[in-house]
Amino acid sequence: MIKKRVLTGVTTTGIPHLGNYVGAIRPAIRASQSEQTESFLFLADYHGIIKCHDPVAIHESTRAIAATWLACGLNPERTTFYRQSDIPEIMELNWILTCITAKGLMNRAHAYKAALQENLEKGLEDQDHQIEMGLYSYPILMSADILMFRANEVPVGRDQIQHVEMARDIAGRFNHRFQEVFTLPEAKIDENVELLVGLDGRKMSKSYGNTIALWENDKKIQKSVNKILTNLKEPGEPKQPSESPLFEIYKAFATPEETAEFIHMLAEGLAWGEAKKLLTEKINAELAEPRERYAELTTDPAQIEAVLQEGAAKARREARVLLDKVRDAVGIRALK
Amino acid sequence: MIKKRVLTGVTTTGIPHLGNYVGAIRPAIRASQSEQTESFLFLADYHGIIKCHDPVAIHESTRAIAATWLACGLNPERTTFYRQSDIPEIMELNWILTCITAKGLMNRAHAYKAALQENLEKGLEDQDHQIEMGLYSYPILMSADILMFRANEVPVGRDQIQHVEMARDIAGRFNHRFQEVFTLPEAKIDENVELLVGLDGRKMSKSYGNTIALWENDKKIQKSVNKILTNLKEPGEPKQPSESPLFEIYKAFATPEETAEFIHMLAEGLAWGEAKKLLTEKINAELAEPRERYAELTTDPAQIEAVLQEGAAKARREARVLLDKVRDAVGIRALK
Repeated sequence: MIKKRVLTGVTTTGIPHLGNYVGAIRPAIRASQSEQTESFLFLADYHGIIKCHDPVAIHESTRAIAATWLACGLNPERTTFYRQSDIPEIMELNWILTCITAKGLMNRAHAYKAALQENLEKGLEDQDHQIEMGLYSYPILMSADILMFRANEVPVGRDQIQHVEMARDIAGRFNHRFQEVFTLPEAKIDENVELLVGLDGRKMSKSYGNTIALWENDKKIQKSVNKILTNLKEPGEPKQPSESPLFEIYKAFATPEETAEFIHMLAEGLAWGEAKKLLTEKINAELAEPRERYAELTTDPAQIEAVLQEGAAKARREARVLLDKVRDAVGIRALK
Repeated sequence: MIKKRVLTGVTTTGIPHLGNYVGAIRPAIRASQSEQTESFLFLADYHGIIKCHDPVAIHESTRAIAATWLACGLNPERTTFYRQSDIPEIMELNWILTCITAKGLMNRAHAYKAALQENLEKGLEDQDHQIEMGLYSYPILMSADILMFRANEVPVGRDQIQHVEMARDIAGRFNHRFQEVFTLPEAKIDENVELLVGLDGRKMSKSYGNTIALWENDKKIQKSVNKILTNLKEPGEPKQPSESPLFEIYKAFATPEETAEFIHMLAEGLAWGEAKKLLTEKINAELAEPRERYAELTTDPAQIEAVLQEGAAKARREARVLLDKVRDAVGIRALK
């Protein structure tokens, strides 16, 4: 049976919060347990440095993200788990793909167009003002990431579909011009993906400042949870789930039965303060064990490094084979 | 004494002709013998694939160019002689530099602007029509080539000064934003560089179809030389050096005394046919030995490969040290 290859990259900027856990990490780890798929997961640090020029932030984010995935149950025996910058073959492929990518394709990429638009709105004469080449050409690097490991499926948010299509386009162009070397990838949008709401009811996101931390202790979690927007209803007054984002967050950590019970309790007049305690307990129950593993991993990051090095060795064996084919196809060959 | 580092790249498209020999190869090999400099010379095959998508042509050109330099006396003990594609560190540096290069800088690069202008003149609506990203972003790769080996001097033609200045610019930006890692390179224009004229008196160039091959046998050289433009003056009639490009080519292979003697003979009425025989002899005298070495090398290209591999090992030791500094500066670090 040929397994479907699923590839996911995580940009190493920022520290994961509860929204990342519910929306991306937990479902990806569950999906990686399927017998039908073969998972590739990588720390996209060479994407991280496109926008973040703070070396300490890049380094700390890399450590936190790697520790998070491992603490949450990623199994490096089943998933090829590596750091992008440990695979120099990707950078080489990136250049080869650069040589066959139409500039017009990059002109149409969303991220670049958004930056252009911003300059336009500011009334700037130089439309490329403060735009750097990393932002402009990263769809090519993303193509190299995907094509290097012959990924069939790339789970992405709607804003990234275009980039996977570009990878397909570039792969097709290479296959046609040189040799059939690349597998054409497909973007996969999971319509059922859980998007966690934040303290204020909008999507939980660092940019809204409405997040709950993932790796804080019980007290700090309680403190964040206490900030969740509620209304002025008194204890004893019946409440609807829709009256506070609290319910949606609770649901993300509860079984259907527990969720039904929670709705019942709210209708019976559960105080918001009590509800917040119940939510905190639920979160802590699910995260207690991962939190211990996280603490253990981040106290001794050399453990994480060892796992990443094993992943890199595994990934590079594959990468080498493909890169050699690609190099040969364009005429980069040993003399003999 | 700190030696000045001089770095030269040769794009692996085409087969070297006599003009390349006189204008680039011979002077570079002479310069590499100086005690004041440390030379780096590389086969720029990752630049070759920007415009040439014919794998056989890239491969054959790589072999011919490598064999040419070695046959002409390049000493791999004195010069670090390598193939760009054997140094993956360059590709990695290329991406890191991409992340700090302003897009506006690339918009101003000559090669790209020339391509834009061509589209404009054709009245095309899409000004980036058929322009590929390799052409657009190659000044960044060229910067990586130069900065990787802390070159002080890059001998270039006038059209390439701008690219060396871009490398300087990018290096300065990195040093300022992160750490003082890079050496600022300077373009070096040799005003005395010998530019060989071709059969028709214009600069000898493949694109004019006016070249003399470098590695053909005596007969074929004679055949090419016989095509050099002359006038209808009969044997016995006095002739001026300016009456045929033949004289300039002769001069490139003769001592000042021999050149003076040749002028004298022309004034005395030397027949063009005789002059062509003398020129052929001169060329053959200088190239007889290199030609044997060239034949020997190209019959057994594994010898060339071995030299390139040694060069790559030497170059990579250096490249690794610099790349590690650069990676550390941007936050790409092992977890420990």
